[in-house]
Amino acid sequence: MAVEWDLLITNVHLATMVGEGYGEIRDAAIAVDNGRIAWIGRREDAAAAGSAELEHDAGGCWLTPGLIDCHTHVVHAGNRSDEFEARLNGATYEDIARAGGGIMSTVRATRAASDEELLRQSLPRIAALLAEGVTTLEIKSGYGLSLESEAKMLRVARRVGEVMPVSVATTFLGAHALPPEFKDRADDYVDAVIAMIPALAGDGLVDAVDAFCERIGFSAAQTERIFAAARAHGLPVKLHAEQLSDQGGAALVARYKGLSADHLEHLTADGIAAMAGAGTVAVLLPGAYYFLRDTTPPPVAALRAAGVPMAVATDNNPGTSPMTSLLLAMNMVCTLWRLTPLEALAGCTVHAARALGLQGEVGTLEVGKRADFALWQIARPADLSYAFGFNPCVAVVNRGVWRDPVVGIAPLPGAGA
Amino acid sequence: MAVEWDLLITNVHLATMVGEGYGEIRDAAIAVDNGRIAWIGRREDAAAAGSAELEHDAGGCWLTPGLIDCHTHVVHAGNRSDEFEARLNGATYEDIARAGGGIMSTVRATRAASDEELLRQSLPRIAALLAEGVTTLEIKSGYGLSLESEAKMLRVARRVGEVMPVSVATTFLGAHALPPEFKDRADDYVDAVIAMIPALAGDGLVDAVDAFCERIGFSAAQTERIFAAARAHGLPVKLHAEQLSDQGGAALVARYKGLSADHLEHLTADGIAAMAGAGTVAVLLPGAYYFLRDTTPPPVAALRAAGVPMAVATDNNPGTSPMTSLLLAMNMVCTLWRLTPLEALAGCTVHAARALGLQGEVGTLEVGKRADFALWQIARPADLSYAFGFNPCVAVVNRGVWRDPVVGIAPLPGAGA
Ligand SMILES: [Zn+2]
Ligand SMILES: [Zn+2]
Repeated sequence: MAVEWDLLITNVHLATMVGEGYGEIRDAAIAVDNGRIAWIGRREDAAAAGSAELEHDAGGCWLTPGLIDCHTHVVHAGNRSDEFEARLNGATYEDIARAGGGIMSTVRATRAASDEELLRQSLPRIAALLAEGVTTLEIKSGYGLSLESEAKMLRVARRVGEVMPVSVATTFLGAHALPPEFKDRADDYVDAVIAMIPALAGDGLVDAVDAFCERIGFSAAQTERIFAAARAHGLPVKLHAEQLSDQGGAALVARYKGLSADHLEHLTADGIAAMAGAGTVAVLLPGAYYFLRDTTPPPVAALRAAGVPMAVATDNNPGTSPMTSLLLAMNMVCTLWRLTPLEALAGCTVHAARALGLQGEVGTLEVGKRADFALWQIARPADLSYAFGFNPCVAVVNRGVWRDPVVGIAPLPGAGA
Repeated sequence: MAVEWDLLITNVHLATMVGEGYGEIRDAAIAVDNGRIAWIGRREDAAAAGSAELEHDAGGCWLTPGLIDCHTHVVHAGNRSDEFEARLNGATYEDIARAGGGIMSTVRATRAASDEELLRQSLPRIAALLAEGVTTLEIKSGYGLSLESEAKMLRVARRVGEVMPVSVATTFLGAHALPPEFKDRADDYVDAVIAMIPALAGDGLVDAVDAFCERIGFSAAQTERIFAAARAHGLPVKLHAEQLSDQGGAALVARYKGLSADHLEHLTADGIAAMAGAGTVAVLLPGAYYFLRDTTPPPVAALRAAGVPMAVATDNNPGTSPMTSLLLAMNMVCTLWRLTPLEALAGCTVHAARALGLQGEVGTLEVGKRADFALWQIARPADLSYAFGFNPCVAVVNRGVWRDPVVGIAPLPGAGA
């Protein structure tokens, strides 16, 4: 009694990311029905199991779970290439701050932009990510720093998921920086952030809550107040932790059963133990490490030994990681930090899903999960981490819908000329 | 008496790379006739100067000279992602060499491949380079290491220029490595390389001659014998010099009025002075430095102070730089070595042209030069070096012919199924 599927992809090698290694199934087939994975097996067994309206011969390509970029600030206005150039021509950080540069220039541009303009400026970056097989994308707020502007960023993030073939997870990062109107009143701003949570969550704009816990950001005590408010509203938390110094942020987020602690260059053994105990994912962000010429790598060997799952993300942002390639992030964690190609791919699939609390939906090829796939013209999965500045993605399946990897950016409805 | 051009691009900002800085002309127009630049000026002056059959409004994009990747080994068979993965899983270089890996695995694969197969495997990498605005591409031999196989590589390189919209400069690199059949007989192999020069040059396959002058490559004395033979056949020389140690290679290539010395991490003050005196270009290759986790940067400040022109290239090769993005190389020289965005762009245009002896033809926007352009959707030229893993190229003009940046790879004539 054979069933009828929507789509059957045959003549394909699968990296299911389930079980040992890549969870390889060579000479395989995978069936999709109603946007979910309906059957996985050897190609020769497919005919007995069912048939499909649309059958696609993948010509011996490799198919992986759609990639997941689990840490981005990709929705923002303006860029900071002027500062980049000024610094390389000898300007100091103080010169740039005095000229109104740094994160506040992005805050000003983002506050000034309309929803449409913010979306329009963000789409080319998002299209670049999607061209490399990204099917799930986390987007943080944090350049608005007021209820109105944070809401705008999160609305635009949600809208990305409507106008582009990608599933978006939103993160409220009100505690990203101290806005000028709260100068020397950080605790008052934390109160304001806490007050934003119910308003934004009530509008369905928030999937998780994040903060920047750092000497130049918010203290552990301030972060904890925000976490308590988030949990009170039923929202999971994550944290920018231990990037520039050890603030005990990883242990803090673990205490709140957080989804992830991100960056972690200055993570200690205590932090690692707390994360391992809580099941908190370590999100590694090599783009910022590279761009800032950091020399302290995160404790990869210790994380590995402790069994902490490691995810990998672009951290796309205009100040410290203007990178829009998750494949390049995979190469960087291998080249710079000696992750294996398997760990790099797991970091952008199964562990990235967990960093977003989506491990039941995406991140592996398993029957019942969302049919989000990337198809690659490669000889073996390690090719994804080995080459850099190269995109072997030949097709993407998003919630069961087949598409070309290059995403056209259509004129936006309602956008002016 | 207005003239009639083939193409006029208006509403464009030009980075001519002539004179001070970027040689900016804002609100400009540029006219093409017979594949060459016919007129450059302010947009408002174009109508009085002439008119064109085809007029294109570039919508305020920036137009630069087409990019030039002046150092690649992009024609080769196979890849080495298996070694990359094995090393990250703990295998030593000795383990890999014992298993037949390293450069000789690429030599074996390249020797075994037919012309068609070699072309077919190289085209996706070349398409990636071209999608980022590359209009001139240097391609080296050096994985054949016999007359027959070196000729095949150079024939395929020439063929790239016929089947893809790019101008190819070929470099004979017979002295890349010692082939196994000449084990312990390096001087005999140098004789064999010298004997290949007239045969290959006679078939029009060689635009320049290169060697790998290094302790693990060929000595300065052996290199000099090859240079003398090249010059005797009227061919310009260039050199892989001072990458791992100081061999006096830069001074040697300068003495032969060489086009370029490439890599240069261990370049000395004497080498810099010799290059400055001879007008030899320093070709910087950050991909290999990054991929090999090198920690000795080339002496950029000293090169700058001495007025040595600096070019930037991908060095695309399977062993030490599997990179196919010249824009990423631009970001790397800025991020890792503190070149300015202006120096990075000059390194991929005007100075790269000189590294190939093509400064009269390409590399700047000047009347009479070849109409090779890249059109970029950017706010300012520094954007090209600032973002990484991002491609803002929206169109390319190659010898006056407009094309989309994404190059389709057509089925090759004569290729089997
Ligand atoms: Zn971040
Ligand atoms: Zn090379």
